[in-house]
Amino acid sequence: MEIRYSERVQGIKPSPIRELLKLTQQPGVISFAGGLPAPESFPVEEMKKASAAVLDEMGAAAMQYSTTEGVPSLRTFIAQRMTQQGMKVDKDELLITNGSQQGLDFTGKLFVDPGDVVICESPSYVGAINAFNAYGPQFIEVETDENGMKMDKLEETLKRYPKAKFIYIIPDFQNPTGRTLALERRKKMVELSSTYEVPIVEDNPYGELRFEGETLMSLKHYDNQGSVIYLGTFSKTFCPGLRIGWVAASPEIVRKYVLVKQSADLQTNTLTQLELAKFVEMYDFDRHVEMVKAIYRNRRDAMLTTMDETFPKKVTYTRPQGGMFTWVEMPQGVNAAQVLEKALEQKVAFVPGSSFYPGGGHENTFRLNYGTMNEEKIVEGIKRLGVVMKEFC
Amino acid sequence: MEIRYSERVQGIKPSPIRELLKLTQQPGVISFAGGLPAPESFPVEEMKKASAAVLDEMGAAAMQYSTTEGVPSLRTFIAQRMTQQGMKVDKDELLITNGSQQGLDFTGKLFVDPGDVVICESPSYVGAINAFNAYGPQFIEVETDENGMKMDKLEETLKRYPKAKFIYIIPDFQNPTGRTLALERRKKMVELSSTYEVPIVEDNPYGELRFEGETLMSLKHYDNQGSVIYLGTFSKTFCPGLRIGWVAASPEIVRKYVLVKQSADLQTNTLTQLELAKFVEMYDFDRHVEMVKAIYRNRRDAMLTTMDETFPKKVTYTRPQGGMFTWVEMPQGVNAAQVLEKALEQKVAFVPGSSFYPGGGHENTFRLNYGTMNEEKIVEGIKRLGVVMKEFC
Repeated sequence: MEIRYSERVQGIKPSPIRELLKLTQQPGVISFAGGLPAPESFPVEEMKKASAAVLDEMGAAAMQYSTTEGVPSLRTFIAQRMTQQGMKVDKDELLITNGSQQGLDFTGKLFVDPGDVVICESPSYVGAINAFNAYGPQFIEVETDENGMKMDKLEETLKRYPKAKFIYIIPDFQNPTGRTLALERRKKMVELSSTYEVPIVEDNPYGELRFEGETLMSLKHYDNQGSVIYLGTFSKTFCPGLRIGWVAASPEIVRKYVLVKQSADLQTNTLTQLELAKFVEMYDFDRHVEMVKAIYRNRRDAMLTTMDETFPKKVTYTRPQGGMFTWVEMPQGVNAAQVLEKALEQKVAFVPGSSFYPGGGHENTFRLNYGTMNEEKIVEGIKRLGVVMKEFC
Repeated sequence: MEIRYSERVQGIKPSPIRELLKLTQQPGVISFAGGLPAPESFPVEEMKKASAAVLDEMGAAAMQYSTTEGVPSLRTFIAQRMTQQGMKVDKDELLITNGSQQGLDFTGKLFVDPGDVVICESPSYVGAINAFNAYGPQFIEVETDENGMKMDKLEETLKRYPKAKFIYIIPDFQNPTGRTLALERRKKMVELSSTYEVPIVEDNPYGELRFEGETLMSLKHYDNQGSVIYLGTFSKTFCPGLRIGWVAASPEIVRKYVLVKQSADLQTNTLTQLELAKFVEMYDFDRHVEMVKAIYRNRRDAMLTTMDETFPKKVTYTRPQGGMFTWVEMPQGVNAAQVLEKALEQKVAFVPGSSFYPGGGHENTFRLNYGTMNEEKIVEGIKRLGVVMKEFC
């Protein structure tokens, strides 16, 4: 039988990273490819205790259906935490999602009709590009520099595409570049969003993982118009396997997300939400995040130091102040896919940069994740990569 | 700021059941409204042990990202169980989803372009109607009787709509009617699907909950053409709060569902999948299901006996051999919404039937769930409802 799929299926492509992960999971491969957080940071014993406590205290209710919006105790914690971080958020302005990837998918579903313009950084997160692509958008990339998206270029874009549906941005330690949007640009961006009436989707999985430098307020902090939709997640500060993220937005917008969630999967896992709420009640989440940051800081240092020592001089890369990624640019004409092929022979992996550009190109770039491997492996892997790169640059 | 949503958002409506649940959660209300399974059947202590065992044995890996397809041990269990039930399914023909509601959403996303025809039973599951509605289908309802969808009517429909995208059906103890598709109709339906090249989406959350009568083979059992997409779930046999369901289909079709899952939320909760796989390893799942069935059988008996005693004679209802629902038809002209209003004054709730018809109408029908309340409450609630109904019929 020939199966006739929907038109939109054409837009849904295999994630190059998830596909690459299969290759890199071979034993002995030092992988800087995935976006996997450090498993050493996952609080396994604490999770066991939190889980037992929830089942003891709540019994069967912990395994029953619960409201689409999410478990109130978890939403209360998130609202308090966001408030501490300078955002005005009430628990009723939150929807718990299956990781923030689901928030991205719902954003596409809620806003994008085929052909609609979505504005994003150049480059941007491939998972977001994939999620939105299922709804047939036209991506307009806005140029970035070491301080993130350029606001003059954004304004030009908004003038040219006044019907754009939203601006998608990762302001802190961006995936893939590791760059952070400068403070003045944040203010300007919220102003532009308001002036041109195009909402911002602020995706902030890494913001809490700052190792050094001053913490910058989120875009949502500067928003008085309800024009910023904020996507948060516990995937990088706690663990990704539990699939707990959230959407924070104005009550009107959140209600729409709740409707989408209802039809998409009714609700997020009741037990897991309660376990996470119990974990933050039983343990000090700030201290936990400090521990996570210490791990990543050391790994970033190991990676950058070894890159400084072993990478060809013509190669440049970002020096992130937080998060999990650095972004490498090789000289024009060098193809990262070819470098990857040689690197895999030496059992080192990374993600070529093109897939982070909706319009393709930029074959001379690639992304390195320093979060997953320990320092010893990072040093060894980067050394091997340095040798491979010398053949090309 | 005025927010401009996508066209499809018009199609996504609040679930009447989820909205009604808010009303019925007031203390003292005896609710036959929700589709909530009996919490008494949830294995809380066993869950605690399974969870601890997973975290002890696997450590941080249980909290890390895992493959989009789902945890292999859980897929192996499901494949074996489906094979025992007469379906040929390999673990690589499965995708684990966040409950089967997500399977429904993905089905809409994968098949339905705006205006496409979806064929369904009349009435059908409101959650499926909602999920598909997000993608703009035209529903064509096929008449049903006490043996389920009428095959002569289905054939007429297939002739009239040769480009229909799929036929959606709940063959066992259907939601909302409690009816089961007769054996001969199953064979005929697979044949028609093959002849007219329109796949079947077989949604089977209740099939394992048969109290009496002969077990009928699934539609998938009769499928040699890869034309049946099967949606399964642990929500009714285990518990719904963990949100674990699955899609089983031909390798080609499953690959498409995997792509959709990747862009929608990457994967289902790693820890929960492992816990469920551990539960079925540590405990006898068949025995567990027997226990669940015994609870529902007693509740069905209590409900039907009390209905027989107290409902007006002009009112008819189904006598399901399994599952959780019975379906009530009052005389023409009686409006279930008005009956509900009076019933709520007596602190009894149910779901009016119209919302189970994509085309509306049938205001004289409603659905009763006997799964959630214990026998004592069922008897009390049905007695109250009988009194209310006498005012109308």
